[in-house]
Amino acid sequence: MTATLSATLFQELENLVLIDPHSHINPLSAASKNLADLMGYHYYTELAHSAGLPKDQIEGPEITPKEKVGRLVEKLADLDNTIQVSWLLEMCREFFGFADDRITKDNWESLYDSAEQKMSQPDWEQQVLKHSKLEKVFLTNDFDDPLEGFDTGVYIPCLRTDDLVFHFLKKAVRDRLHKATGIEAIDAGTLRTAIGKLFQHFVAKGARACAISLPPTFSPVKVDPGAASTIIKHAVKGQRLTNSEQDMLSSFVFWTLTEYCAEFKLPFDLMIGVNRRVYEAGVYQGQDLYDTRVSLIQYKEVLNAFPQVTFPISVLTHMSNQELVSYSWIFPNIVANGHWWYSNTPTYIELDTRSRLEAVPRNKQIGYYSDMYKLEFALPKFRMYRRILARVLAEDFVQRRGWSEDQALALGKQVLRGNVETIFHI
Amino acid sequence: MTATLSATLFQELENLVLIDPHSHINPLSAASKNLADLMGYHYYTELAHSAGLPKDQIEGPEITPKEKVGRLVEKLADLDNTIQVSWLLEMCREFFGFADDRITKDNWESLYDSAEQKMSQPDWEQQVLKHSKLEKVFLTNDFDDPLEGFDTGVYIPCLRTDDLVFHFLKKAVRDRLHKATGIEAIDAGTLRTAIGKLFQHFVAKGARACAISLPPTFSPVKVDPGAASTIIKHAVKGQRLTNSEQDMLSSFVFWTLTEYCAEFKLPFDLMIGVNRRVYEAGVYQGQDLYDTRVSLIQYKEVLNAFPQVTFPISVLTHMSNQELVSYSWIFPNIVANGHWWYSNTPTYIELDTRSRLEAVPRNKQIGYYSDMYKLEFALPKFRMYRRILARVLAEDFVQRRGWSEDQALALGKQVLRGNVETIFHI
Amino acid sequence: MTATLSATLFQELENLVLIDPHSHINPLSAASKNLADLMGYHYYTELAHSAGLPKDQIEGPEITPKEKVGRLVEKLADLDNTIQVSWLLEMCREFFGFADDRITKDNWESLYDSAEQKMSQPDWEQQVLKHSKLEKVFLTNDFDDPLEGFDTGVYIPCLRTDDLVFHFLKKAVRDRLHKATGIEAIDAGTLRTAIGKLFQHFVAKGARACAISLPPTFSPVKVDPGAASTIIKHAVKGQRLTNSEQDMLSSFVFWTLTEYCAEFKLPFDLMIGVNRRVYEAGVYQGQDLYDTRVSLIQYKEVLNAFPQVTFPISVLTHMSNQELVSYSWIFPNIVANGHWWYSNTPTYIELDTRSRLEAVPRNKQIGYYSDMYKLEFALPKFRMYRRILARVLAEDFVQRRGWSEDQALALGKQVLRGNVETIFHI
Repeated sequence: MTATLSATLFQELENLVLIDPHSHINPLSAASKNLADLMGYHYYTELAHSAGLPKDQIEGPEITPKEKVGRLVEKLADLDNTIQVSWLLEMCREFFGFADDRITKDNWESLYDSAEQKMSQPDWEQQVLKHSKLEKVFLTNDFDDPLEGFDTGVYIPCLRTDDLVFHFLKKAVRDRLHKATGIEAIDAGTLRTAIGKLFQHFVAKGARACAISLPPTFSPVKVDPGAASTIIKHAVKGQRLTNSEQDMLSSFVFWTLTEYCAEFKLPFDLMIGVNRRVYEAGVYQGQDLYDTRVSLIQYKEVLNAFPQVTFPISVLTHMSNQELVSYSWIFPNIVANGHWWYSNTPTYIELDTRSRLEAVPRNKQIGYYSDMYKLEFALPKFRMYRRILARVLAEDFVQRRGWSEDQALALGKQVLRGNVETIFHI
Repeated sequence: MTATLSATLFQELENLVLIDPHSHINPLSAASKNLADLMGYHYYTELAHSAGLPKDQIEGPEITPKEKVGRLVEKLADLDNTIQVSWLLEMCREFFGFADDRITKDNWESLYDSAEQKMSQPDWEQQVLKHSKLEKVFLTNDFDDPLEGFDTGVYIPCLRTDDLVFHFLKKAVRDRLHKATGIEAIDAGTLRTAIGKLFQHFVAKGARACAISLPPTFSPVKVDPGAASTIIKHAVKGQRLTNSEQDMLSSFVFWTLTEYCAEFKLPFDLMIGVNRRVYEAGVYQGQDLYDTRVSLIQYKEVLNAFPQVTFPISVLTHMSNQELVSYSWIFPNIVANGHWWYSNTPTYIELDTRSRLEAVPRNKQIGYYSDMYKLEFALPKFRMYRRILARVLAEDFVQRRGWSEDQALALGKQVLRGNVETIFHI
Repeated sequence: MTATLSATLFQELENLVLIDPHSHINPLSAASKNLADLMGYHYYTELAHSAGLPKDQIEGPEITPKEKVGRLVEKLADLDNTIQVSWLLEMCREFFGFADDRITKDNWESLYDSAEQKMSQPDWEQQVLKHSKLEKVFLTNDFDDPLEGFDTGVYIPCLRTDDLVFHFLKKAVRDRLHKATGIEAIDAGTLRTAIGKLFQHFVAKGARACAISLPPTFSPVKVDPGAASTIIKHAVKGQRLTNSEQDMLSSFVFWTLTEYCAEFKLPFDLMIGVNRRVYEAGVYQGQDLYDTRVSLIQYKEVLNAFPQVTFPISVLTHMSNQELVSYSWIFPNIVANGHWWYSNTPTYIELDTRSRLEAVPRNKQIGYYSDMYKLEFALPKFRMYRRILARVLAEDFVQRRGWSEDQALALGKQVLRGNVETIFHI
């Protein structure tokens, strides 16, 4: 009975048209051109590499898209248990009519060709949006992105700020900032002004969020502008900073960004917990991991200092989920946001979804975002989430708490779509 | 079949008369007088505030109980997914005959009035105790509580010691200690004697436990009385202590309390992991959170030093539950105690219950306590736990391990009631 | 339907003949001689002690095996909820025809006698291997084990290295190394040579792995041989080392072992997270616990430095499992290995199995090992795992992802046996 109910709720949730509140879509090339665009997603390259495929077999300018797919396919048999490969199969079935239960060396070429043909249709991007029931998609834009050449009503800009907070020391970053704003950031004041310019530009182009990913060691504090200026001057001169100076600089930039989020009424997406380049010989985007020893208490000061800023927070691991639940339950300015990266697998999504739905106010939860690089991924990823959400609604709310189907469905729709609208003012 | 069995076991467990081993009941005013007493519970005020209700709308001397309820009701729709609101509904149904499935602006006033009428009956407290099948309820008493004016056979005193361990530096705390004991604590010896007086008083009044809540950073060590005396003298003079001195002072008091627990044969309830005042602008009792980075290994020294003292340990988070399971399985003097605060939601209760029942000796587990401030909460909270316990017994023990229903039920009764009697010597 | 499918898959998995990739079997006395050999397993002694049985009642040279069992039996009623006692019952039923549902003071003596009779049959060891469907069993050998007197085709040697890495400071350890290799390790070079001799000996005897258990604080780094030599010379002279020197010495030995694993193509089993002697008054082998605050990032340097070495990693707690999943998914040289010790209970095994099967390449997972001291334990332990594995395959793969039974079964067989063969080159 629960299984039937769960299936019914899933079908209802499948009908919902979505706004995807976080992706890495390039709006100038949103959909894929061939299977290599799909299988080049780091999930497949890193899993294939982890399973034994040498990196140089799949990375290098001389490898054609078709060769790359052929080599990845040879490793797919070792990965077919992963949920990520199930997304790939679901895309192939849904978009290209693939009918086998595995992609193998015997069937991949015809799949490749039929997919390429389909993807070369001029309205492919529109087909994918429509078939996936995607109305709008949030982007992740470099701070110096001109934000031109695309419909910002569909692809919503989001100011990504990792470079500013963690890589201001790099001349290339400072040069980009200079070029984007016309301002040379040489002290706290000019850096502040330059960042203000970025916000003006992004908000004028319809940006609906500022975002950043953060290492597990980061704990922002308010830094005196005078002290910040001294450090910025050192940095600009190319002098080496101590770890403590680097932390202060990062804190100063982070704090300044938060002040502008307050001023421009932009939610600040915090994606907490990633260590970059842990496996240095890994494939592109397949080098990052984490240290579970992280706590939201590291953000106590900034959360208290900015009650007027909404912080949709994503945590990298299931181990941080209970903190996210509890902190969202207490702090009015925290929203529990999606299921990020290493937590984006069914076992963890299910537990995290259950715990959030039973303890966080329903208006403070964003159920899911795709985090995708190519548009085709929204369908299988959101579908995975909808299946789990339907099951949790069926078991925890209808079966155990006696809710009606309609009440459960309304809750599902709110976390899947409604809250995205209210929280990001869409 | 499992569902039926689970329902049967639940009904059997519902018949069990309980001793609640931890609450914050005021025995001079144990039951509620109106709906504001129920909805003023921090779970509702903090969730409503988190969902957007300004603190000054619900806190302030000028707000009448009825106004307060009215304002909270307006936010209930944003919280109706939470398990806490399901407790509220269950109380209203069970005690006041409320028949709707939501409390709304249209039906709350009549609910308020009918509840107030019911609660004004002279035997309301007895009705609640009887209807909730509560035989005895443990209290949480300030160290200077006179423990008078109530039946200590029903409301069992418990010596709460946070103030002594963490706030001895405050003159008000020292004055209270002086007044309660007639002893001025000016060095290690006099402090020890004063604390001894408290134990004598509490034990004479039928206290069955000493208790304390502890921050995640605390790690008690044995402190030399001479060193402690020096620090106490500084403290008494109003001098500022270093962090290290404050830690030593806390350790000294904690250790002294433990010595008296040994002498007076009182279990020492440790409630581990809470950071106070993390969200400083929060509502009353809605400001505390935590840092998951805590370990029971911090208590290694005291656990080894006092094999004769029973430590019923509660952990604030599911993330600490496996440590509690493993430490209870190894240390004879640890009892796994209840599901505390941020872990007191069904997803975490279920996992924690499963893991304890399969790995900790059955005589070393206290299934649940209410942690309630008002008597009416025992019913929905214990019922939530009984539902989960019944399900775990049905699935893990009857279905998977082939136990008979009677055997499973006996296990359930032992963790719900039997162990409370043996562990606290009732 | 899922229950039926799960039962079918379980039966199929039960037919699989196993290679147990980690045990503590003494190959010269692999099977038990009486019930005391089974009930002397630390799980029973430590749980009975934890439940209230004084240590001196079960430890001491004057206690006969039968007396010991009699005393443990008196405490069994307090432990019968534990999964460990369910293993005991399953062994008694399976091997000795025990038909009651509890072992009590009324029935244990006849069980003891019939078990002893059965175990005294000359081919008992062979009966157990055959009945348990065990083809080969990995050992845990001291570094100075002569590895003689047994069939290394059945009992596969494994070089255990805790003593070398953490106890080189002890003269007894250095003497054993000297005696085993003929080399006196007095500096980095001679220590290196001596360790090389151990590898030669073990590999010549058919060893298939090197192994070590590691405390949560350990974080190996590459140490300069000159610096190591200085420390080793101090150690050999019996001088006290600072904590930092002790860490460097441990790192140096660990790094040297890893170099030899590379040279001899041996996987290096890392068992991460145990603190020894936390409860110092505990029974034999019942004193160790842990601190969940540990991360695989502590192994970043060694994992990057030795891409050619396979590291089957076990983690002590469920709290570390997600890191193991993520690190196995990224690092080609990590294999997720079994369910160790405090995580070896059904609740944690199920969650950990689900999360691994959905995110780690299927060729990089070793489902289970027994960790047993006596041969009879393989049957109930592996059976517990097979039940859980069957359930996960039925629910997650067949039911939710549409796999065929055969496909699911093939995955189960691979993690239960196939990967043991490929990873350890058997």
